[in-house]
Amino acid sequence: MGETPTALEKLNIRRPTLVLDRARAVSNIERMAARASSSGIALRPHFKTHQSLGVGRWFRDVGVSTIAVSSVAMARYFAEDGWTDITVAFPVNVRELDDIAELAERVRLGVLVDSRDAARALARRAGAPLRVWLKIDTGYGRAGVAWDDGARITAVADEILGGSSLEFAGVLSYNGLTYMERTPEGVRRVHEEALDKLRAVRELLISRGAAACAVSIGDTPGASVGEDFAGVDELRAGNFVFYDLMQVGTGSCVPDDIAVAVVCPVVGVYPERGRVLLYGGAVHLSAESMEGEDGRVVFGQASRTWPGGAMPFAPVVSLCQEHGVLEADPRWAAGLKLGDLVCVLPVHSCLACDLYDEYVTLDGEKLGTIHKDGEA
Amino acid sequence: MGETPTALEKLNIRRPTLVLDRARAVSNIERMAARASSSGIALRPHFKTHQSLGVGRWFRDVGVSTIAVSSVAMARYFAEDGWTDITVAFPVNVRELDDIAELAERVRLGVLVDSRDAARALARRAGAPLRVWLKIDTGYGRAGVAWDDGARITAVADEILGGSSLEFAGVLSYNGLTYMERTPEGVRRVHEEALDKLRAVRELLISRGAAACAVSIGDTPGASVGEDFAGVDELRAGNFVFYDLMQVGTGSCVPDDIAVAVVCPVVGVYPERGRVLLYGGAVHLSAESMEGEDGRVVFGQASRTWPGGAMPFAPVVSLCQEHGVLEADPRWAAGLKLGDLVCVLPVHSCLACDLYDEYVTLDGEKLGTIHKDGEA
Repeated sequence: MGETPTALEKLNIRRPTLVLDRARAVSNIERMAARASSSGIALRPHFKTHQSLGVGRWFRDVGVSTIAVSSVAMARYFAEDGWTDITVAFPVNVRELDDIAELAERVRLGVLVDSRDAARALARRAGAPLRVWLKIDTGYGRAGVAWDDGARITAVADEILGGSSLEFAGVLSYNGLTYMERTPEGVRRVHEEALDKLRAVRELLISRGAAACAVSIGDTPGASVGEDFAGVDELRAGNFVFYDLMQVGTGSCVPDDIAVAVVCPVVGVYPERGRVLLYGGAVHLSAESMEGEDGRVVFGQASRTWPGGAMPFAPVVSLCQEHGVLEADPRWAAGLKLGDLVCVLPVHSCLACDLYDEYVTLDGEKLGTIHKDGEA
Repeated sequence: MGETPTALEKLNIRRPTLVLDRARAVSNIERMAARASSSGIALRPHFKTHQSLGVGRWFRDVGVSTIAVSSVAMARYFAEDGWTDITVAFPVNVRELDDIAELAERVRLGVLVDSRDAARALARRAGAPLRVWLKIDTGYGRAGVAWDDGARITAVADEILGGSSLEFAGVLSYNGLTYMERTPEGVRRVHEEALDKLRAVRELLISRGAAACAVSIGDTPGASVGEDFAGVDELRAGNFVFYDLMQVGTGSCVPDDIAVAVVCPVVGVYPERGRVLLYGGAVHLSAESMEGEDGRVVFGQASRTWPGGAMPFAPVVSLCQEHGVLEADPRWAAGLKLGDLVCVLPVHSCLACDLYDEYVTLDGEKLGTIHKDGEA
């Protein structure tokens, strides 16, 4: 149940450090690969969560060969390591058309559009074939053509189908609404509502003459606890590799699935006010917060050793740039002294991990991220 | 009033870019230097906001020679550029005692402690002289000895005074409570309450035999609009170099003082739902939010050209990792198309700037940050 303080001591940590539990991450990867496989759908994990060649190779080890990323720069970074089938799962940025065309010469590249203008811009910048996904909004309201706006859906699809060098891949959606749910049952209901909508869109497009129309979905809660994947062709979830407190909050994982923590030195112990001060702030954890179980805002949950089992946590109740403040009851803080290390589970692992140049595994291995190994 | 779109176009922006208005930053620096000078106190600007050698030189140009930073690594970074009087304005991290001792050989180094344990740890690691500040909490509750805990104050001070190679510098405080205020009058009141407490602490220490006891304060709202600085020896504010929406909210500056914005390409225009989608998310702006004027949460304010004057803004109403969603009325969004650039004023400039390797000035000059030029 968790590593002893001595195990963390071996890592020679002096400053806030992003520590990765490789066994948990690999287990998370294997579990999701098995879920996809048992549902007969392709796994195209989103690599924006880890942004690391080293972690990417763990996916390759279980047979994954197709990935999603959130920027053209990230696609280039992974292409350098031999990934040849990459979807940039972010609406086409027309300021990067040359970068997209250059990359499409080297890998099988997918992009996504939700307007005729974007499809036309891609078609005008002729080059190597591009797989183009039509982004559909099933209710989240961030990007995409509304699932029930048949006229616009067919207009954008026609633009893609008519574009030389553009290959119509199908419909792609991100169901961020699952993050609002607090139980697996709630996630399943919202997941199934979105699938119904996507299947209707696919029917429309097939009836309008599309030869094929794949369906790609992408949220970690739905991917983790969903049961119905009928009609889905690929799963683009990403966060599941590390999970985090937000995912625990949706019922998509348990705390012991969380594979990353920011390990922070203690720089202040204030038993008289029930507070512990960490060297570890918003530049180490991100400023992301969530409601804790008692309705109060928390920025992380801290443990005295590597988190695992039924150990008690102390909430991070406020963050400044470099400071983190824990609310710690006497039992939790007992014996704590300056320089001790504390492990903080992040609210949102994607944002916390993006702040680092490298991961340190519990075994002391260092894995660089795009911020270290990628282009400037 | 503001740069034309053409001026931004000259910067060849393809992805979210941190753009800096040099004239505004220099004006902010000059104004704060004049305020400090007219009050007869030393300015020791906090460089954690910009973390850039280039921006640091603009301070040197107005005669600043003493600085504060928030980490030992940041102190090393600025020491390399010839800064020789540096306070690490963060509670001593005893895991970095060797780094502190090494740096103290090269520069006049200040550190801060709020416990006997920290003072003892510094004294045990004998080396070059260190200036040690006693950190006082005037009510913010983050770090420091409570201002009215005379026993602990004198105990920690005695520990510093008794430590060979430790020089007692005085008392240092950060009044984060000024950030809760919404008017200059409110900021002034909270600022003066804190000064009263610090002056009492100084009297106590002088009466107990301290030969000298400087007083150092550090918040940007108090530094920007405070009027009473009696008894204050130095001002460690930092955010004022760029300001941000949070500072506008406290009444410490006006929007035209804000010197940085994240310039983002438009990747979606949805007039039917009054939304515009930006390539620019929490990894470009930070996840920091604040209450807007109407009580709703905002993550930034967007303008169609470089912000200035009475131009209308559209609020960033949600952020994902790489996506930013603007709520845009038809007048604001009129004529907007894919690939247009939008300038987003950050809620908290310190956190937004920390996400970048470099600044691009409106003139196209690039200034590296610690993330580019500093140690790994």
